[in-house]
Amino acid sequence: MRAATLKSGAIVTVEDLRAFCIAALLKVGVGEHDARTTADVLVTTDAWGVFTHGVKALGGYIRRIRAGGIRVDARPRITSEGPGWANVDGGSGLGMVASTFAMRAAIAKARACGIGYAGVYNSCHFGAAGYYAAMAAGEDMIGLAMANDAPSVTAPGASGRVIGSNPLAYAVPAGSGSPILLDMATSTVAGGKVTSAHALGKLIPEGWVIGLDGRPTTDPGAFPAGGALTPMAGHKGYGLALLIESLSAVLTGAAITRQVATWAIGDPSVPTGHGAAFIAIDIGSMMPIGAFKRRVDAMAQEIRQAPRADGADRIYLPGEREWERRQRALVEGIVLPEDVRLSVARLAKELGITPEFS
Amino acid sequence: MRAATLKSGAIVTVEDLRAFCIAALLKVGVGEHDARTTADVLVTTDAWGVFTHGVKALGGYIRRIRAGGIRVDARPRITSEGPGWANVDGGSGLGMVASTFAMRAAIAKARACGIGYAGVYNSCHFGAAGYYAAMAAGEDMIGLAMANDAPSVTAPGASGRVIGSNPLAYAVPAGSGSPILLDMATSTVAGGKVTSAHALGKLIPEGWVIGLDGRPTTDPGAFPAGGALTPMAGHKGYGLALLIESLSAVLTGAAITRQVATWAIGDPSVPTGHGAAFIAIDIGSMMPIGAFKRRVDAMAQEIRQAPRADGADRIYLPGEREWERRQRALVEGIVLPEDVRLSVARLAKELGITPEFS
Repeated sequence: MRAATLKSGAIVTVEDLRAFCIAALLKVGVGEHDARTTADVLVTTDAWGVFTHGVKALGGYIRRIRAGGIRVDARPRITSEGPGWANVDGGSGLGMVASTFAMRAAIAKARACGIGYAGVYNSCHFGAAGYYAAMAAGEDMIGLAMANDAPSVTAPGASGRVIGSNPLAYAVPAGSGSPILLDMATSTVAGGKVTSAHALGKLIPEGWVIGLDGRPTTDPGAFPAGGALTPMAGHKGYGLALLIESLSAVLTGAAITRQVATWAIGDPSVPTGHGAAFIAIDIGSMMPIGAFKRRVDAMAQEIRQAPRADGADRIYLPGEREWERRQRALVEGIVLPEDVRLSVARLAKELGITPEFS
Repeated sequence: MRAATLKSGAIVTVEDLRAFCIAALLKVGVGEHDARTTADVLVTTDAWGVFTHGVKALGGYIRRIRAGGIRVDARPRITSEGPGWANVDGGSGLGMVASTFAMRAAIAKARACGIGYAGVYNSCHFGAAGYYAAMAAGEDMIGLAMANDAPSVTAPGASGRVIGSNPLAYAVPAGSGSPILLDMATSTVAGGKVTSAHALGKLIPEGWVIGLDGRPTTDPGAFPAGGALTPMAGHKGYGLALLIESLSAVLTGAAITRQVATWAIGDPSVPTGHGAAFIAIDIGSMMPIGAFKRRVDAMAQEIRQAPRADGADRIYLPGEREWERRQRALVEGIVLPEDVRLSVARLAKELGITPEFS
């Protein structure tokens, strides 16, 4: 039986969730190809179990589309390039459209030169960085993906927001099993974890957030009130965030730090100006791909078989949990967390579309 | 007055320290050019104030040279290459010689393609990764440098050593002031900090080390006894270490994880088999270098002028402290920490050389 609403705790198939995303994007004027691209990024992210960066974000993108801050007629294009690099104008369109275009450009450059870099400017929030890194792994390449964002993180010695929680992801193809995949924020925890604790009325551990007074706090409300996230591992996370800012924004011509508009809140009629950067390394240029994958598998096997800590039943490779969740999601479907389910229902109502959930 | 021994707390000039390193390396058969290269890496590192990775390590390299594990007649050479990449056989020579050679190769490839990658195999410990990243910045490029090492760090779910403390460094050239420079281990703290606390009979904070039983401990002696460092920020440091292992060792043909011999301890007659990786991005191919540097300066200025935390008198850019220390060291000289001073004295005696310290 198919129903127009998804009940709390109900299972949704990946295909139905994808169809809902596409329908919602078509409704606000996004072209079919771009709608499919964006839906695939968001639904893959949910299938990985990374619900903070999946379909939950669709409402925010659509609000921005309707207000003009994201342009549905934007076509990403290469505005300058060389043998091993390209710079892409995202045209203030959807971040997923510009970013998949740019990662494909980096992959093409890597095929020609062994390594390729593609920068993006005039983009928007691109969702989960890991999706783009995994694109390269799907082409038997090592992929890196990163982006800047509006400042939400403080720096050692500062008392407020200085830099974005600039994410970094990479993927390395393996022989048996899925690619090694890491997707991390350079803040101690992602802002979504803090706002989610706030919504649930829970305290957060000291060390995640500083308040407006610059002091550590366990009140998650201090973050939306204007406090700041802390950088991951202090000066290291701060330093990595500046590398990401340099590659994603300084080098691409994108908005830098405070010039970036927050995509989720703030005036939705204004393009956010996000930048991003993608690097692909063509393994096959350098080493037979089979030999490389055997070497990855040997390393993975050694780590998996290492002595385990008390209470640990497995040692996971980065991304292994996410790929296993995705495999399960494709077969069994996904139970959306309540906040995601409600945002889907709200968006369907707002847009007057009737999703079909089996 | 010049003296053959350096007294505790005495100032040594950068030039005298460099001359000592060169004399020591020549004495054990290293060629003049390679001795100068190695000395520059080590002395620059001490001038930055990173004493764990400077001249203090020279005794270990020389022990390995004398036992045959580091070959003085090795010549690094490119064994395979493409338009944007090269792979370098370090010939089991000094890690600094292979690594400076490889970073120069990455820079040349970047000049041709916009971005260049150089891998290294058959290398040894390369000292401070930041030196090589800074080489690229000196050519108006963004530089990244990384290497693998024998396992000393555990992983989430594991109870022992799984992966090296694999360092990552980057440098971004600035207009006014020195390059932004980060050089970090992917462990919570470097092993040297733990062994140094052990030597001083101090406890360490919980969270740095786990003992042989896999449990957290505040006893620094648990690390040399076979315990493990913890990864920086848990799964993030572990994940970054695996990226570094993939780029430095899996892709280059170098020894992977447990195949790498520890350079400081263990049989010094055996080559360690370290790998390393270097990436250079030629800014000038993509954007006028002046415009790029103005953008870096604007970002740096914004961060420096952000509101400060209680008790902080400055907000530093990554590497700013180190460059200021180096500037001071070049003018005023360096006071070596006692452990470094003693290792210099011991090495001079062992080799029967008479350093001249003014």
